[in-house]
Amino acid sequence: MYRTHSCGELRIKDLNKEVILSGWVQQSRDLGGMTFIDLRDRYGITQLVFNMDVNSGLCLEARELGREYVVQIKGKVTERSNKNKNIPTGDIEIIVSDLNILNRSDLPPFTIITDTDGGDELRMKYRYLDLRREPLKRNMILRHRMAKETRKYMDSQGFIEIETPFLIKSTPEGARDFIVPSRMSPGEFYALPQSPQTFKQILMVAGYDKYYQIVRCFRDEDLRADRQPEFTQIDCEMSFVTQDEILNTFEGLIKHLFKSVKGIDIHDSFERMSYKDAMDNYGSDKPDLRFGMQIKNLTDLVKGKGFGIFDNAEYTGGICAKGCGDYSRKQLDELTGFVRRPQIGAKGLVYARVLENGTVRSSVDKFYSAQDLGTWSERFNAAKGDLMLILAGERYQTLSALNELRLELGKRLGLRDKNRFIPLWVVDFPLLEWDDETKRYYAMHHPFTSPKPEDMAMLETSPGDVRANAYDLVINGIEIGGGSIRIHNKDLQQKMFKALGFTEKEAQHQFGFLMDAFRYGAPPHGGIAFGFDRLVSLFAGLDSIRDVIAFPKNNVGKDVMIDTPSAISEEQLKELKIQINLQNQKKTRES
Amino acid sequence: MYRTHSCGELRIKDLNKEVILSGWVQQSRDLGGMTFIDLRDRYGITQLVFNMDVNSGLCLEARELGREYVVQIKGKVTERSNKNKNIPTGDIEIIVSDLNILNRSDLPPFTIITDTDGGDELRMKYRYLDLRREPLKRNMILRHRMAKETRKYMDSQGFIEIETPFLIKSTPEGARDFIVPSRMSPGEFYALPQSPQTFKQILMVAGYDKYYQIVRCFRDEDLRADRQPEFTQIDCEMSFVTQDEILNTFEGLIKHLFKSVKGIDIHDSFERMSYKDAMDNYGSDKPDLRFGMQIKNLTDLVKGKGFGIFDNAEYTGGICAKGCGDYSRKQLDELTGFVRRPQIGAKGLVYARVLENGTVRSSVDKFYSAQDLGTWSERFNAAKGDLMLILAGERYQTLSALNELRLELGKRLGLRDKNRFIPLWVVDFPLLEWDDETKRYYAMHHPFTSPKPEDMAMLETSPGDVRANAYDLVINGIEIGGGSIRIHNKDLQQKMFKALGFTEKEAQHQFGFLMDAFRYGAPPHGGIAFGFDRLVSLFAGLDSIRDVIAFPKNNVGKDVMIDTPSAISEEQLKELKIQINLQNQKKTRES
Repeated sequence: MYRTHSCGELRIKDLNKEVILSGWVQQSRDLGGMTFIDLRDRYGITQLVFNMDVNSGLCLEARELGREYVVQIKGKVTERSNKNKNIPTGDIEIIVSDLNILNRSDLPPFTIITDTDGGDELRMKYRYLDLRREPLKRNMILRHRMAKETRKYMDSQGFIEIETPFLIKSTPEGARDFIVPSRMSPGEFYALPQSPQTFKQILMVAGYDKYYQIVRCFRDEDLRADRQPEFTQIDCEMSFVTQDEILNTFEGLIKHLFKSVKGIDIHDSFERMSYKDAMDNYGSDKPDLRFGMQIKNLTDLVKGKGFGIFDNAEYTGGICAKGCGDYSRKQLDELTGFVRRPQIGAKGLVYARVLENGTVRSSVDKFYSAQDLGTWSERFNAAKGDLMLILAGERYQTLSALNELRLELGKRLGLRDKNRFIPLWVVDFPLLEWDDETKRYYAMHHPFTSPKPEDMAMLETSPGDVRANAYDLVINGIEIGGGSIRIHNKDLQQKMFKALGFTEKEAQHQFGFLMDAFRYGAPPHGGIAFGFDRLVSLFAGLDSIRDVIAFPKNNVGKDVMIDTPSAISEEQLKELKIQINLQNQKKTRES
Repeated sequence: MYRTHSCGELRIKDLNKEVILSGWVQQSRDLGGMTFIDLRDRYGITQLVFNMDVNSGLCLEARELGREYVVQIKGKVTERSNKNKNIPTGDIEIIVSDLNILNRSDLPPFTIITDTDGGDELRMKYRYLDLRREPLKRNMILRHRMAKETRKYMDSQGFIEIETPFLIKSTPEGARDFIVPSRMSPGEFYALPQSPQTFKQILMVAGYDKYYQIVRCFRDEDLRADRQPEFTQIDCEMSFVTQDEILNTFEGLIKHLFKSVKGIDIHDSFERMSYKDAMDNYGSDKPDLRFGMQIKNLTDLVKGKGFGIFDNAEYTGGICAKGCGDYSRKQLDELTGFVRRPQIGAKGLVYARVLENGTVRSSVDKFYSAQDLGTWSERFNAAKGDLMLILAGERYQTLSALNELRLELGKRLGLRDKNRFIPLWVVDFPLLEWDDETKRYYAMHHPFTSPKPEDMAMLETSPGDVRANAYDLVINGIEIGGGSIRIHNKDLQQKMFKALGFTEKEAQHQFGFLMDAFRYGAPPHGGIAFGFDRLVSLFAGLDSIRDVIAFPKNNVGKDVMIDTPSAISEEQLKELKIQINLQNQKKTRES
């Protein structure tokens, strides 16, 4: 037996017990006649004591132990004279009588402590050492608990977990598919699923009216931002339900997770906001509602006063930063610099302060009278000491820039507290998005999303105005999940494919099986999928998903620990009847 | 709201309630003035009643409903005069007042009933219809429950579920890997995991001493027998444990599953049998212990009496079929035919009956005296009316053939009851297997399995005799799981790779990260993996795993419902910088 107890378990009530512990040497301190060793495992740290006077041989052995050695010890639990109130085992220590080195360790390339000295690169390469650190361990256990509580809730609601295949078929957005050559069908390929979307709909047709799965998904896209080529979804689908019933069910899931995992009670129903309102008031379809600072449209107030930029702008709007009227030149320049960054792309920033005497001073006083400026501050409901920040330009771009500016100010003003969570359903998304480049509509959500019945008539006349029965869950400005009521009628689905520019043949080739299934009694259905990595990282208070994944890839899709992707043998390629052609793309471009 | 109740929910206590139900039309019966419809959903079947006298319009509408139409009805719960004791809702029926057709259905290509008329091919193509059938539904729900109870038990034992990556690195047994071209690293590939083996060991090095995962694995091999290219494992690993502790922990899991899912109490500890005993007494490393009929070695008794076949055989042995002494010529010929099948490959079958008068009559009486035959029946402990069946030849082949013969007789004699479950741990497997073709040893389990310390010395002198700390769980002759204590010492692991014929470079290329990890304090560890599909099919009483998987592939790895694998676009191939070369292999063979 390697241990009778874990390293996090012994307390004052265990005094005088003979115990066996196994674990890693966290640190060793040599105080003259005594040697103290902190022994660590997943459960905690226990102090070991070796005494030169009592057993000099053993004590000398102990002094040889390096950091991260794996040892097994036998000894007696004793009360510490110098108690450590910071750890649960801090009242006791073990007087060691036997020491057995289970494995040695080279000196780790970085220290295994909370604030490690290891850089990102090094930590990824030695992930097994990084995972020993307390913050990562906490994340892994948090993730486990969240999966467990998710299953508990879904079970309580009568959902059943059904596994869907990983070796599926490449879809029209094929460029994002990872593909897998088939040895048994040479020249043919499987694809890894971007989501189990079509399978969960098939399951609804099959009568499994409440399905869920915590499932890996794959997307081969450039890993800008905080993305991983493989990621995990909580994937759900229901039959015979309205949109409201779906939102209520999954509001329940999120509330259950907050309560059971973080001890946070969310009593109120989550706010529901239309896509239009979110865009108008926050410039984003995922507004952070931890603070107000809504965007106000000033377009009607600012035109015709001779200020060319506003006169010529499709849209002028701004936000009001409470109590920031005393911002210095330097601070305002910083904000101007911020909105001018290429990612944001505004040309300049107009500001107006409400002074202590109630008058407004702006950077465009030349064009606007005190009365004009008064109408601005009225629209913002601005008070003494407030700062109005105004951008102008093309509507969508300007709103997006105002969203970024709002978030930046929220950050600067400390309004984005990581311990407050404000969930929001964004609803009534547009069904289609126009793409200027390819001159066609794309499904905003996916091609299976149902239009709102009342907007159906516009599908052929003004497709861009049709709203969908689609919804996103947003928490603190982060999109946590999204879903929709699906189309369950073959004819409507065909109409949708047509609106999206699929030929009948393409639609049949890609989704024939779903259209076939719809011929045999498909029930009304809808669902949602949550980004599990994102949800865990939100709960962990992290900005990145990387540290809630045990073995993540880096930002070029590599796992530097195992060194993959990597070359494979000629043999394997031959068996699969494929070959590498690095010139392939270049040639095509030249031709 | 689509429904107030499910179709399996209403009882006599609900009389006179106004309810809304939604579901599929299972069948419709037209009895003159009345039309009865069985409405089906996941939860059951409820009878709907339409009465020509009460509402002729509605009744005529109801008569138009075809099988598998999806309908929503409103109506009142009434007591049935003609109660159906076979279904839980059989006491009531619904007098329908409103009928709403949610979706129509073409006539299904086979009937949605327990004993369907659909062939395998058709059922696979229309899997969504097949999944509506009661037996498949039962299997899916059983699978869900088993996953749930597995997690419950593992949680109760302090295991944490950690997800490991799917895009990993191709291993030396690379021919069995599915590979995935990387777009971002042209010419390089990921591989899909055959199991999370190295990752779970890495997690042990990282200090997560109790890991589990219910996880998809992939193997690109010819799908003889009952295999799938993707399958699900219950994958587990523990640190600081002995083999005994591992066996006890997972014996607990299996007992928990039997108890919670099938209501079967298994009080006794599972029998543990060495690989050697299993081979000697059952001719198999996965003996079916639902019946005895052990194999007896007769080699020492049969030689030197002039019967050439036994004289020249390395091994002669047999089984004793209780009460089969009266087998007819025809029955014996059948058994002879059975063992002569090419898959079994015996040359002939010798038999001996114990007659009512106690004498033994055999098919080789010419060579063996009554006294000789007496020694045989003594070895078999054969009684009056028993039949001894004897094979001879090369030892391993003969034992294998006797195993098949034993199983066949067990089947014929009704000794393999699907409702009895006899679990068995087979332990002390050989570490290595010699392969005559390639003239080298292979790891019987995998290259990370630890040799038994007491056999360690033989690793260089007689590698074939070294036993491993490896174990399989066998239930009713089916291998349900297997595992081992792993090597956790870098030097021993290197020695193992060498014994397996890896060059140092190959070992470093494939498993460098694991060897690296072992340099930083790897704890003693071991684990096990269970074939989840196999376990569910055992619980379901099925011989195949196909019907416990929602969307299985057929025996050439195809999903005929979605039609995959399939061709992908030139575009995609170009982006991935690969091309198809169907001549590839042929050319190589000619060269």
